[in-house]
Amino acid sequence: MNARPESYRWVPQFDHVTPSDASTLAAGFRAAGVAGGIKADGSMDVAILVADAPETVSAARFTRSAVLAAPVQVTKERAKLDTLRAVVANSGNANAATGNRGLDEAARMQGAASMVAGVPVEGVAVASTGVIGVQLDGNKVVQALVGARAELRPDGVADFTAAISTTDAFPKTVGFDVELTGGTVRITAQAKGAGMIRPGFATMLCFVQTDAKLSAETADLLLGVCVKRSFDRISVDGQLSTNDTAILMASGASGVEVAPESEDELRFGEALDAALRTLALDMVADGEGATRIGRVVVNGADLAEAEHVAREVANSPLVKTALFGQDPNWGRIAQAVGAALPGRHPLAFGIDIEGVAVARGGQGISFDEHALIEAVGGDQVEYAITLPVPDGALPAEAEVFFSDFGYEYVRINAEYTT
Amino acid sequence: MNARPESYRWVPQFDHVTPSDASTLAAGFRAAGVAGGIKADGSMDVAILVADAPETVSAARFTRSAVLAAPVQVTKERAKLDTLRAVVANSGNANAATGNRGLDEAARMQGAASMVAGVPVEGVAVASTGVIGVQLDGNKVVQALVGARAELRPDGVADFTAAISTTDAFPKTVGFDVELTGGTVRITAQAKGAGMIRPGFATMLCFVQTDAKLSAETADLLLGVCVKRSFDRISVDGQLSTNDTAILMASGASGVEVAPESEDELRFGEALDAALRTLALDMVADGEGATRIGRVVVNGADLAEAEHVAREVANSPLVKTALFGQDPNWGRIAQAVGAALPGRHPLAFGIDIEGVAVARGGQGISFDEHALIEAVGGDQVEYAITLPVPDGALPAEAEVFFSDFGYEYVRINAEYTT
Repeated sequence: MNARPESYRWVPQFDHVTPSDASTLAAGFRAAGVAGGIKADGSMDVAILVADAPETVSAARFTRSAVLAAPVQVTKERAKLDTLRAVVANSGNANAATGNRGLDEAARMQGAASMVAGVPVEGVAVASTGVIGVQLDGNKVVQALVGARAELRPDGVADFTAAISTTDAFPKTVGFDVELTGGTVRITAQAKGAGMIRPGFATMLCFVQTDAKLSAETADLLLGVCVKRSFDRISVDGQLSTNDTAILMASGASGVEVAPESEDELRFGEALDAALRTLALDMVADGEGATRIGRVVVNGADLAEAEHVAREVANSPLVKTALFGQDPNWGRIAQAVGAALPGRHPLAFGIDIEGVAVARGGQGISFDEHALIEAVGGDQVEYAITLPVPDGALPAEAEVFFSDFGYEYVRINAEYTT
Repeated sequence: MNARPESYRWVPQFDHVTPSDASTLAAGFRAAGVAGGIKADGSMDVAILVADAPETVSAARFTRSAVLAAPVQVTKERAKLDTLRAVVANSGNANAATGNRGLDEAARMQGAASMVAGVPVEGVAVASTGVIGVQLDGNKVVQALVGARAELRPDGVADFTAAISTTDAFPKTVGFDVELTGGTVRITAQAKGAGMIRPGFATMLCFVQTDAKLSAETADLLLGVCVKRSFDRISVDGQLSTNDTAILMASGASGVEVAPESEDELRFGEALDAALRTLALDMVADGEGATRIGRVVVNGADLAEAEHVAREVANSPLVKTALFGQDPNWGRIAQAVGAALPGRHPLAFGIDIEGVAVARGGQGISFDEHALIEAVGGDQVEYAITLPVPDGALPAEAEVFFSDFGYEYVRINAEYTT
């Protein structure tokens, strides 16, 4: 898809959450994006985000890959993740599998951003995205940062987002006004996605700002929960990246507090959830060559099994090509379910596609095929799978969002260069 | 690939194993294939294989999917797997996720084949391949079998193979003469492959005949070992089928015995291994839309990890599209290795592509990129990955063969119909 759909059916709406201008950051933040010469085409590739208030708190989540990119290592090891005040990011080079020199370059980025932002080094997170295994020229980033200092501004979202993007077809930003008991706060967020998105944490960068006043513990709790329901639930090509990073920063500039275990925490959490799910679905919609989004939701079994089945179905190239081909071939779903649970025959699974029951008790049932072919031609398609619940277990539910596989996926990935 | 390559670099050659006419079965077997009207295009779709000697022994392996097709259930539950005398198979319909009616139809096939072959019902294995979730018309199979009786003959391999094929682009058969101390024996085998091939057991049918005299225990042992080194080691699209079946039958017609733990057992095993690896590589070569075969071999780690890493690399759509694009992008391999071992940073992996070292100690090293691009343009490409060996563990080795992902894969699977 070359643009965000008008809406996502899987993002809940709340009366207390209102879309607002996404091009201006929540109060207390400034951002910029500049061209540093890392991308060959000369487009923007160095981004910086700064929180002005010293009392800003933060939380972060990273990829679980065993091959951690240098910026992820540097951020995890040399930054204080609960008091981040700045983010420096580049696109065009992942600075991954680059050894000690890569670590040095990431540290140099961190140091330069510290000076530009006027915050301590340990308050700077570093992120990179792009080709793996090529040394990053940190001098280019440093020089670009010097120029970016004058560009930092509250409405720098468009440049910032452009500078963290790679093959993204459209910018991924959200802005929400959230009504809390003490007043209205804002949430703004920017992401990049597209290639190499998998369940298990998307290959993605996502930066979230709010002017609400949160404790670091609350920020960490809410980010963790919302990441699990968003970036951890998407699949473009079943891959896990070396560079995944999600960072939430709260400036407190609104003066409105979100107290732990309060009604406001719930309301703020719902808004953060909507923001992150929107951006996660943006990543799926912008999956390389994607034309449709599917959601598989598994009910029954236990949680681990339900998740595993959902991921296997979402990652199945046969299911993905069927989604692309507008083909309600439920046999491919049955096959993926069976493959996910080796040795568990007989399995009394059920399958519904767009609300149409196509299989019950482990076998196909009759349905209106023509109507179903119509139904799976939309841009958002729902697959529901039921599994038996083990004795004594509570029924689990697990969802994964996925893009289809089409010719464009092959073209982009076969021609993407070393 | 539309034909078998001249040779496979990964199938070892032995002085005591000589290719021989694959179109005639090993002594003691007859086969036939006929058109039963299951495939819409009227081509052959019902196959039968008969061993004439009552003393024939056998062994079998099946898919581990939790969604077992009816023929697999019937064969596992109602046949004696060590004394099979006949196989009946159909293509065009998998008879999977078809419930009790599907079981009845598979049992009907078994019964009819028993009469046609003149062997007890429990001596008949049933196999099906094709679309999942559609009821099979067993009457068609029964009627076709009546006609097939007169067609059974030692050189019926071509018809038999045609009748078990679906999207296969070329027939997959082998014939070997094997010199043992007591004389020469033959091994013949037929397979169907193509779609839905995964490591963890290929979605495939494979039937092997030999005129050697084996005990049932030896047949089971050798089939198990050779399946693990062949069909269990291939990936087209990471999928596991509902219908996978591999059956070895030994007629003893040559009078040459293969004694347990003898030199002859080793020699016979080497020949069986070459036969099954050839057919497994045929399946990869004939993977939907495949243009190249890759082999990933992981050295180091422990066996479970080495296997897991090999499968993740082989199943990665990014690696598969890079193979299609003749792109020596080792970063995608590094990424797949990292994703396979979450939380295991730092990981001092090494990568060689076609013998060219491209990464050592977890980072890229310089290499002749132009030469490597040439090297990855062949029809068989080798990727070697090294991982650190845990303290006290023996270094493991695991291999997986995989096909590339190209436009044809998408076309075939998006347009393959319900």
